[in-house]
Amino acid sequence: MKILTLLFTLLTCQVYAQEVIEKVQNYRKANEHKLLKEYLQLLSIPNIASDSAHILKNADFIMGLMREKGIEKVQLLDAGKTETFAPPAIYGEVNVPNAKRTIIFYAHYDGQPVNPLQWSQGLSPFSPVFTDQSLEKEGKIIPIPTENEAINPEWRIYARSTSDDKGGVFSILNAYYALVKSGIKPTSNIKFFFEGEEEAGSAHLGKILEKYKNLLKSDLWIILDGPVHQSGRKQVVFGVRGDVNMSIKVFASKRPLHSGHYGNWAPNPAMQLVHLLASMKDETGKVLIDGFYDDVTPLSATEKQALAQVPSVDEQMRSELGFAKPEGGGISLVEAISLPSLNINGIQSANVGPMAANVIPTTATVVLDLRLVKGNDYVRQVEKVVNHIRKQGFFVTEEDPTEEERMKYPLIAKVSTKGGYNAQRTPMDLPIAQQVVKAVQSTSKEPIVLLPSSGGSLPLYLFEKHLNTPTITVGIPNHDNNQHAENENIRIQNLWNGIETVAALMTMK
Amino acid sequence: MKILTLLFTLLTCQVYAQEVIEKVQNYRKANEHKLLKEYLQLLSIPNIASDSAHILKNADFIMGLMREKGIEKVQLLDAGKTETFAPPAIYGEVNVPNAKRTIIFYAHYDGQPVNPLQWSQGLSPFSPVFTDQSLEKEGKIIPIPTENEAINPEWRIYARSTSDDKGGVFSILNAYYALVKSGIKPTSNIKFFFEGEEEAGSAHLGKILEKYKNLLKSDLWIILDGPVHQSGRKQVVFGVRGDVNMSIKVFASKRPLHSGHYGNWAPNPAMQLVHLLASMKDETGKVLIDGFYDDVTPLSATEKQALAQVPSVDEQMRSELGFAKPEGGGISLVEAISLPSLNINGIQSANVGPMAANVIPTTATVVLDLRLVKGNDYVRQVEKVVNHIRKQGFFVTEEDPTEEERMKYPLIAKVSTKGGYNAQRTPMDLPIAQQVVKAVQSTSKEPIVLLPSSGGSLPLYLFEKHLNTPTITVGIPNHDNNQHAENENIRIQNLWNGIETVAALMTMK
Repeated sequence: MKILTLLFTLLTCQVYAQEVIEKVQNYRKANEHKLLKEYLQLLSIPNIASDSAHILKNADFIMGLMREKGIEKVQLLDAGKTETFAPPAIYGEVNVPNAKRTIIFYAHYDGQPVNPLQWSQGLSPFSPVFTDQSLEKEGKIIPIPTENEAINPEWRIYARSTSDDKGGVFSILNAYYALVKSGIKPTSNIKFFFEGEEEAGSAHLGKILEKYKNLLKSDLWIILDGPVHQSGRKQVVFGVRGDVNMSIKVFASKRPLHSGHYGNWAPNPAMQLVHLLASMKDETGKVLIDGFYDDVTPLSATEKQALAQVPSVDEQMRSELGFAKPEGGGISLVEAISLPSLNINGIQSANVGPMAANVIPTTATVVLDLRLVKGNDYVRQVEKVVNHIRKQGFFVTEEDPTEEERMKYPLIAKVSTKGGYNAQRTPMDLPIAQQVVKAVQSTSKEPIVLLPSSGGSLPLYLFEKHLNTPTITVGIPNHDNNQHAENENIRIQNLWNGIETVAALMTMK
Repeated sequence: MKILTLLFTLLTCQVYAQEVIEKVQNYRKANEHKLLKEYLQLLSIPNIASDSAHILKNADFIMGLMREKGIEKVQLLDAGKTETFAPPAIYGEVNVPNAKRTIIFYAHYDGQPVNPLQWSQGLSPFSPVFTDQSLEKEGKIIPIPTENEAINPEWRIYARSTSDDKGGVFSILNAYYALVKSGIKPTSNIKFFFEGEEEAGSAHLGKILEKYKNLLKSDLWIILDGPVHQSGRKQVVFGVRGDVNMSIKVFASKRPLHSGHYGNWAPNPAMQLVHLLASMKDETGKVLIDGFYDDVTPLSATEKQALAQVPSVDEQMRSELGFAKPEGGGISLVEAISLPSLNINGIQSANVGPMAANVIPTTATVVLDLRLVKGNDYVRQVEKVVNHIRKQGFFVTEEDPTEEERMKYPLIAKVSTKGGYNAQRTPMDLPIAQQVVKAVQSTSKEPIVLLPSSGGSLPLYLFEKHLNTPTITVGIPNHDNNQHAENENIRIQNLWNGIETVAALMTMK
């Protein structure tokens, strides 16, 4: 019932803050070239979390932008003493007299690792270019528009983090500045928090939140990350799946062998890994690991109702992505992302293509991505997988095997995990949640999509754990942005929409 | 019975041509630095068959050496008009008045593809270095010996093709020159034939043999390729397995997807490939493809007896390679290499390690290596695998799938093959075969190993087909030479032994 009430409220709110949006739009229209020029500069700085020099360069650049825009107390938030490099978060704030509340806007400035060889011709992860359309729709690279040229909002910018998540940083900073330049006061105190190692698993985020607990006091975190809905509608997301990566490396002979002289006799680690992986999932996509689907907290009635309202995009996506049959044995995309998942991110043993050689490889490696839903615990979920590996006869180790282990165990798997955190869901009926929904709806003529949980992940449980503060996620980029992969891009209209969405949130009733 | 007679003859032949060997040894001892200097120059020229510029540089360099050594009619043998670059073979000859017969000595001057990143620190495929021992035994890189320094025969040289098969070229040319310099006349007319695309599947060898049929008339081809026996004994090999490579590429979504937003719904090509590969072989290593072991011509009684005489190295190899249990469900290494095989040479989908990202890959590729024994036909063997792929529900295509095919077939595999040729076995009891065995035995105090067929492959059936001439293979390098892989090397004593073996063959009764 609650969800129906909520939807009704939404539809009566179309004109909410219409004036704010118009002013912000006018500011943007007058400054498009300047906005994009600044954005291209930001995109040109490599931002892999482990690349400390460049990460700090990104932070410097962003802090410069913040100061220019009049944001106060701009500073780096560090994780204290750490064993390895911990990318700092960037902080800033704006205090508004008589503000009702404090909202922290979150985005992250680091990006996923890149393999430049996999990017299409003419593209390079940190040399942004414009195209007249998405590459999948035969888009062509076009020159960077000159000052006098009109910018077509259907154009795209290709570079790492255009969408994920420098687009979030862009929207937040420029929404704020558009308000300043339009003479509009935010209705909340605003804090800015830009994380620097989200794509590396946010290993130090908890430490930072704990260390700067007082500075980070607020009523709500609004997370700018992830795309709008595949239907093109804006969406508000109330939770995220948890995530943990596992790397499994299988060891056979100590040196690579001629496949003729030893083929069919010396064990092949790729074949051993293949058997192991095949045992993990059946051909419909069901995970066969014992207890994999246990622990799942059922959706609430409100959440179930919300899910039922989400426009189905299954057929659209199937056709857009070009495949005949989804995994999952018939469940829909929204159902699939409400379940824990096991996905192969990458697999490699020796070489394929021009570098392939007639060898028996020495090792074979797979990287798995486990997504978790509310109720799952990431440590427990990894344990289930490790137990499964053992049940298939493998000796499981965390180090490269010793000579003795090699001679003792016919099957050897080195397992390591990276990152890891649990899912999080904010109740959809919190009063502040309803304010957010109204604000986002005010920027859109079509009904926006309300999703109890994204399929993607962010370490949002940390905000609950360390700060006891709810989080709500608002997407900005187009869904076909290739985030996490080669050819990442953003549609320019989505950048413009992002500014409006955030401006509405900064001025919400 | 025949094999016993043969062995008896061998053991009474220990002193055969002892004088020749001594003279050749003396020549080598006086010229070790010069020999190795020339060899390092040859190893420094990259030799991937597709790299036409460097292949021709190798050929030039080798022809220069041949002319210096007084070999006649030195020339390139080309394949005539071809669609793609066909590395030429190198030819030369020496006519001996009153010679009993004509023998062609074969080696190949091209090498397997290289991935320099996979080579150990300090090594580079085409910058040969010396080590004081094999790397697996903690060998260290040492400076290239100066003129006055004694050369330890246990040292190794690391570079691509040190063993496979520039070592063959080295042994043949220097054995001949050692005879010349020692004033010894060969007992046969000698022809030299150095192939330039053996590691790329010898696609044009048949054309070359056919075109130069008359020039290549002989009584026997002696193939210098492959290692000595793992026991360290010299070996004479009477046949080879056939070989064909298959690449299987599985297609799923057209663009890489965020594994959170689509994981468990969008099909994962790596998981599809894993299921396919797991269906091809059981956990003991038995190939499950229908009819895979059909067509095999049984070993003759002589061949079976020879196999029974081969010293077992299974335990030695298992310990050297560091694994607990071989594939094959209990069969020995010599039995395993007498069967057709299916081996994963390499597999890749997206990335592992530092470049791994949370994606659902778009494709997954495996390269398989099928080894064939006498009776198998490589086209038929590939068909069996393709039929198996179809039986697992895949649409099999030779091109990237069209939009329509993507939307129609849930499982899509693009299959391509590379090279391909059948096995070959020369009868062990041919009179000329017995002469070869005696000659090689004369250079060794230990009984040499007689192998009906190597596990490795060479397109030797072509010599039967185009020239109707038998072939016998004689190995030179150490068995632990990492041929076909990173860190290829040769033990210097094996180079010296190679010169003596070939000299004995050139002067055999």
